[in-house]
Amino acid sequence: MRILIIGGVAGGMSAATRLRRLNEDAEIIILEKGPYVSFANCGLPYYVAGEIEERSKLLVQTPESLQARFNLDVRPESEAIAINAQTKEVTVKNDKEEYTLVYDKLILSPGAKPLIPPIDGIKEAENIFTLRSVPDVDAISTYIDNHKPKKAVVIGAGFIGLEMAESLVQRGLEVTIVEKAPHVLPPLDEEMAAYIAKELHDKGVEIYTELAASAFEESGKVVVLENGEKLESDLTLLSVGVKPNTDVALTADIETGFRGGIVVDDHYETNKKDIYAVGDAIVVKQQINNQDTMIALASPANRQGRQVADIISGLDRFNKGSIGTAIVRVFDQVAASTGLNEMQLKSSGEQYDVIHVQGKSHAGYYPNAGTVLLKLLFNPASGKIYGAQAVGTDGIDKRIDILATAIKAGLTIQDLPELEFTYAPPFGSAKDPVNMAGYAALNIIEGVSESIQWHELEEKQSDGHILLDVRNESELIANGQLPNALNIPLDSLRERISEIPKDQPVIVSCHSGLRSYIAERLLKQNGYKVKNLDGAFALYSTIRPERIIK
Amino acid sequence: MRILIIGGVAGGMSAATRLRRLNEDAEIIILEKGPYVSFANCGLPYYVAGEIEERSKLLVQTPESLQARFNLDVRPESEAIAINAQTKEVTVKNDKEEYTLVYDKLILSPGAKPLIPPIDGIKEAENIFTLRSVPDVDAISTYIDNHKPKKAVVIGAGFIGLEMAESLVQRGLEVTIVEKAPHVLPPLDEEMAAYIAKELHDKGVEIYTELAASAFEESGKVVVLENGEKLESDLTLLSVGVKPNTDVALTADIETGFRGGIVVDDHYETNKKDIYAVGDAIVVKQQINNQDTMIALASPANRQGRQVADIISGLDRFNKGSIGTAIVRVFDQVAASTGLNEMQLKSSGEQYDVIHVQGKSHAGYYPNAGTVLLKLLFNPASGKIYGAQAVGTDGIDKRIDILATAIKAGLTIQDLPELEFTYAPPFGSAKDPVNMAGYAALNIIEGVSESIQWHELEEKQSDGHILLDVRNESELIANGQLPNALNIPLDSLRERISEIPKDQPVIVSCHSGLRSYIAERLLKQNGYKVKNLDGAFALYSTIRPERIIK
Ligand SMILES: Cc1cc2nc3c(=O)[nH]c(=O)nc-3n(C[C@H](O)[C@H](O)[C@H](O)COP(=O)(O)OP(=O)(O)OC[C@H]3O[C@@H](n4cnc5c(N)ncnc54)[C@H](O)[C@@H]3O)c2cc1C
Ligand SMILES: Cc1cc2nc3c(=O)[nH]c(=O)nc-3n(C[C@H](O)[C@H](O)[C@H](O)COP(=O)(O)OP(=O)(O)OC[C@H]3O[C@@H](n4cnc5c(N)ncnc54)[C@H](O)[C@@H]3O)c2cc1C
Ligand SMILES: CC(C)(COP(=O)(O)OP(=O)(O)OC[C@H]1O[C@@H](n2cnc3c(N)ncnc32)[C@H](O)[C@@H]1OP(=O)(O)O)[C@@H](O)C(=O)NCCC(=O)NCCS
Ligand SMILES: CC(C)(COP(=O)(O)OP(=O)(O)OC[C@H]1O[C@@H](n2cnc3c(N)ncnc32)[C@H](O)[C@@H]1OP(=O)(O)O)[C@@H](O)C(=O)NCCC(=O)NCCS
Repeated sequence: MRILIIGGVAGGMSAATRLRRLNEDAEIIILEKGPYVSFANCGLPYYVAGEIEERSKLLVQTPESLQARFNLDVRPESEAIAINAQTKEVTVKNDKEEYTLVYDKLILSPGAKPLIPPIDGIKEAENIFTLRSVPDVDAISTYIDNHKPKKAVVIGAGFIGLEMAESLVQRGLEVTIVEKAPHVLPPLDEEMAAYIAKELHDKGVEIYTELAASAFEESGKVVVLENGEKLESDLTLLSVGVKPNTDVALTADIETGFRGGIVVDDHYETNKKDIYAVGDAIVVKQQINNQDTMIALASPANRQGRQVADIISGLDRFNKGSIGTAIVRVFDQVAASTGLNEMQLKSSGEQYDVIHVQGKSHAGYYPNAGTVLLKLLFNPASGKIYGAQAVGTDGIDKRIDILATAIKAGLTIQDLPELEFTYAPPFGSAKDPVNMAGYAALNIIEGVSESIQWHELEEKQSDGHILLDVRNESELIANGQLPNALNIPLDSLRERISEIPKDQPVIVSCHSGLRSYIAERLLKQNGYKVKNLDGAFALYSTIRPERIIK
Repeated sequence: MRILIIGGVAGGMSAATRLRRLNEDAEIIILEKGPYVSFANCGLPYYVAGEIEERSKLLVQTPESLQARFNLDVRPESEAIAINAQTKEVTVKNDKEEYTLVYDKLILSPGAKPLIPPIDGIKEAENIFTLRSVPDVDAISTYIDNHKPKKAVVIGAGFIGLEMAESLVQRGLEVTIVEKAPHVLPPLDEEMAAYIAKELHDKGVEIYTELAASAFEESGKVVVLENGEKLESDLTLLSVGVKPNTDVALTADIETGFRGGIVVDDHYETNKKDIYAVGDAIVVKQQINNQDTMIALASPANRQGRQVADIISGLDRFNKGSIGTAIVRVFDQVAASTGLNEMQLKSSGEQYDVIHVQGKSHAGYYPNAGTVLLKLLFNPASGKIYGAQAVGTDGIDKRIDILATAIKAGLTIQDLPELEFTYAPPFGSAKDPVNMAGYAALNIIEGVSESIQWHELEEKQSDGHILLDVRNESELIANGQLPNALNIPLDSLRERISEIPKDQPVIVSCHSGLRSYIAERLLKQNGYKVKNLDGAFALYSTIRPERIIK
C-alpha cells in the first residue's frame, strides 16, 4: 500500500508518523512544497522577537530524522501540482523535474496561505511581508538585519498580527497597527479586546481601527489608509487572515464549501474516493451550533492528522468537528477564547446571556495574584455554555482550558460551581473564577440577579435609571468616577438606603461587579427595582475611558 | 427566622453570606469558638515561611466587616457546647457566661481537628505543635522567634506536613520528616510521590518512612521512632491527619458514620430536622465510586456552605458529593491529584489500568518549558477515568483541573484527544499532555500498545524478558543505565533488529516512554512479543534509583 501525503507540517506529518506506527510496511511519501517539514509555525513570531534564539528549535523534525525514526520518504521542495482522482495519480514538481506518483490513499494537509488583498501599489512595494513559513521568517529577519527599519506597520490585528506587533517592538521598531474591524483581536468581543488594545497602547503601539489600508506608495514606504491618512513604514507585515490552500485539490474537482475550504465527510474523506483532507484547509463543523466553519489552529490539525491515519488503518474514528480554542500573549497581557463569541451567536440567531466575573489567578492573600477577567456566554434557559473569553496576566490558559473541556463535555453553567479544582494559595482559590462565573450565571438564570451590559448603561441613564456606585471614596479618587453616579459605599448602604429614590430604577456598580451584586440583593429585598452593571467600573472604564471623570 | 451557624470559617461563613444575600431579614448568628473568623487556613504554612508577610492578610473578613457588609451577628470566642434538637436550642459558652439561643435552622460547619495520637511523653513535651488556626500559627511563630530552634521534626507527610517542612526550611531549620505510611504524600501513588521525596531530599530534608514516632523524651527534645532510632528536635510539628470536630453534634445525638463524620442527606440535613452540616466534618459521597469518604478541602467546604444556604432559602440544590482534587507545592516541585488513587481502586475492587506520560508545560521549542509527568487511572473496558495525578515544576494545576472537569463530566479517555486547549508557544502544546495521555490510554484499550508498570520490571526480567533500552549512547552516559539492558537506539532499530532474539518476550524502555512505544510498534509488526515499560527510565530511576547503573 502506498500512501501519499501532500503537506509535511502539522496535519500531514502527524498523519505520517501515526500511519507508520500502525503500518510498518506501508510506503509513505510526504510531498512538501517548501524547504522544511515539521516546523513550528506557531513559534515563528517568537523567533522574530528573539525569544526563541536558535533557528534550529523551529525545526521539530527533519527529513533525515523522519527517515531514521519512521522510515518516511519525505520530499521537501516538491510541490504536488495536479491530482488525477481516476487514475489515482499525483503530479509532483521539484526544481529538477516533474513526475507522477500513484497512490492507494491520498491525504491532503496543504494548510492555508496568507490573504493578500489586491491593494494598490502592493506589487511595487519592497518592504511588505507575510508570515507562514520558515523562509518567510528568514526574509523578515534578514530584512531587519540589513535595513534596520525604524517604523513598522502591521496590517491586521488578529493573533499573528498581534504577536508580530509585539515581536517587532521587541526588536526595537515603532509599531502601528491597522485593523479594518472595529477592534483589535476580532475573534474576541469588543470589551474583552479593549484590554488588549489598552496594553498595546501602554506599550507604545499605535492602533487604527475601522480602517483598511487602501494603497501603498513609494515602494511601500507609505501606507495610505481608507480615510486618506498616510503612515510611514519601513517594514509592513500583512496579516489580514488566511485562505485554504486548495490549488492542487481543485485540479481533481475536489468539492470546496464554506469560504473555499475542502469539504470532508465524518471520516475526513473528500468527495473523491480515497482522497482525504485535514487541517487548516478543511471546512469543519462548529460543534456548538453545528454550523460550517474554518478553524486554522494547530491542535485540531494535529488531531485530524492522527485521526485520518487511524481511519485509513481501519480504526473506528469520527470527525466530530471542533469548538475552536485560542490564546495570544500581547506583552504582559494574555487573551484567550473558546467556542462562540457574541457576533457568531447573533449571526446564528442564538438567544444568549452574558456575565463577566473578575477573579484572581490564585488566592488574593498570597503574593502576586493576577487579575482574571472571565466572560461567559450561555443560554438563559438551558444554561448551555456557548463560549468563554478571558483576559489577564496569568492563569488565562487554565480557565479557558477548563471551560473548553466543559463545553466539549456538554456541561451547563449549573455544573460549573460543582467543579473541584486544585487549590493551594499559589495555584488557585477556594472558589475559582470558573466556579464564580457559574455562580454569577446561575444567579442570572434563577432571577436572583439581573444585569445590564456596558453598552446599555448610557441609554439606561438617559432613560432615568439612577446609577449607584458602591465603591469607597478612596477608589473614586484613585480610579475615577462614573458619570452622574450617586455614591454610597456598600458598607454604609443599609443605613443610607433612604438617600436612594424608590420610584426610579437603579443600576448598581462597584469595581468588579461583586459588591454591586451584594448591593443589588440588598436593594431588591428593600423593594427597589435594580440591576447590576455587569463587569462594573473595571470593565466600563476600559471600554469607555472617555466617560470616566478623573 | 433565626439561623444559627456553628463554625465561622470556610463552610460556615460561606453559608452566612449567601444566606444574607437571599434573606435580608433573617437573623443570622455565627458562633465561633476561636478568636478569628473567615481566616485563610490554607495560607497558614505560607505565613510561617514568611511568603505571606502580613498577618492581616490571613484574615479575609472580620466580625466588624461582616457586620457592616452583611449585617451578620458574628460571635468569636463563643463555643457551642450543647444542642437540644427537641427544643431547638444551642448552649453557648464564652469567657464570661453560658447562654442559650433558639434557632429555626442550625448549620454545623465545625471543621476538623488535628489528630493527636496518644504517644508516650506527648503531654510532657513543650515543643510540639499542630496547625489549624491563627492562634496555632502565632504559637509556632512566637516559638521560633523566642527559641531559635535549629532542628525540626515533622511527623506526618501529608499536604500540611510537607508545606510546613518547606516553611520550616525557609525559616532556616534543619527538617526531618517521619511518615508511618510507605511513602511521603500518601494520597498520591508511590511512584508519583517519589518525585516529591527526591525534591525534599535534594533540598536537604531527611525522610523516614514506614516508621511512626513511638515516644517523646526530654520534654520533647528527643523523638523516638518505632525502630528505636532517636531524633533530636527543637520543634516538632504533628500533622498526622485530622478528625471531624463532632463534639457539639454528638450532644444532640446527631448521627455520625464513616471515620466519625457527620452523616447528611442529599440536602445536607442531618438525622435531626432543621440541623444541617457541611465542610470537613461531614461524610461525603465519593462521586466516582459512590462510596462514603471524608474530603477535608476548602473548595468543597465553600461550595457546601453556599448550597446549604440555598437549600434553607428554598432553592433547588443537591449534595452530589465530591471527587477530591488537591495540590501541594514542595519547594520547586508541585504535585496534584484528582479522583481515586491505586490504593483506593484496589480496596474498592475496581478493575483499572494505568498510564504515565511525560509532556511539557508548554511548547518544548519555547524557553523554560517544565516537565509534566501525568498519570491516568482508567477502566480498561469502558475508558472511564478514575483518577489522575501529576508532578512537575509548572502547569500541574492546569492539567489536573482539566482532568477533574473531565471526571466530573463523565468523559472517558476516548474523549481526551478531542479536547481543544489554548495553544501558543508560551502556554501549551499542539498536543497537550492531557491529549497525549488520552492517546496513550487509548492505545492500551485498543491493544495497539501493551505496557508493564515499574514494579513489574524486576520480576519480568528474571522471568526471561529481554529489556531493550532505545535511548542514545549519550543519554546512557549522562543519566545511567537500566540493569541488564540491551541498548539499540531507536533510530537504528530497523537496521539492527536482528540483534534482538525473537524467541524471548521483550520489554522496551527509553527516557519517557514515547520512543519505546514507537519501538514497541516497530517490533510488534516484526513479530516480536513486546511491551512498553510505562513511564520508562525517567520514572523507573526515580522510584528505583538503587537499580540504576551509573
Ligand atoms: C505565524 C503563525 C503562528 C501561528 N500560531 C499558532 C498558535 O499559536 N496556535 C495555534 O493553534 N496555531 C497557530 N498557527 C496555526 C497553525 O500553524 C496551523 O493551524 C497548522 O500549522 C495547520 O496545519 P496544516 O497541516 O493544516 O497546515 P500547515 O502546517 O501550514 O502545513 C501545510 C503545508 O503544506 C504545504 N503545501 C501546500 N500545498 C502544497 C502542495 N500542493 N504540494 C506540497 N506541499 C504543499 C505547505 O507548504 C505547508 O508547509 C500559527 C500559524 C502561523 C503561520
Ligand atoms: C494549615 C492548613 C492548610 C490547608 N491548606 C489547604 C489547601 O491548600 N487547600 C485546601 O483545599 N484546603 C486546605 N486546608 C483545609 C481547609 O482549610 C478546610 O478544608 C476548610 O477550612 C474546611 O472548612 P470548614 O468550614 O469545614 O472548617 P473550618 O474552616 O476549619 O472552620 C471550622 C470552625 O468551626 C469552629 N468550631 C468548631 N467547633 C465549634 C463549636 N462547637 N462552637 C463554635 N465554633 C466551633 C472551629 O474553631 C473552626 O474555626 C488547610 C487546612 C489547614 C489547617
Ligand atoms: C511532531 C510531528 C511529526 C508528530 O509526531 P508524532 O510522533 O505523531 O507525535 P509525538 O512526538 O508528539 O508523539 C506522540 C505519540 O507518542 C505516544 N506517546 C507519547 N508519550 C507516551 C508515553 N509516555 N507512553 C506511550 N506512548 C506515548 C502517543 O500516544 C503518540 O502516539 P500515537 O499517535 O501512536 O498514539 C508533527 O506533529 C509535526 O510535524 N509537528 C510540528 C509542526 C506543527 O505541529 N506545527 C504546528 C504547531 S507549531
Ligand atoms: C469569604 C467568605 C466570607 C465568603 O464570602 P462570599 O461573599 O460568599 O464570597 P465572595 O466574596 O467570593 O463572593 C461571592 C459572591 O459574589 C458573586 N460574584 C462574584 N463576582 C461577581 C460578579 N462579577 N458579578 C456578579 N456577582 C459576582 C458570586 O456570585 C457570589 O455570590 P452568590 O454566592 O450569592 O452567588 C468565606 O468564604 C470565608 O470566610 N472564607 C475565608 C475562609 C476560607 O475559605 N478558608 C479556607 C480556604 S483558605
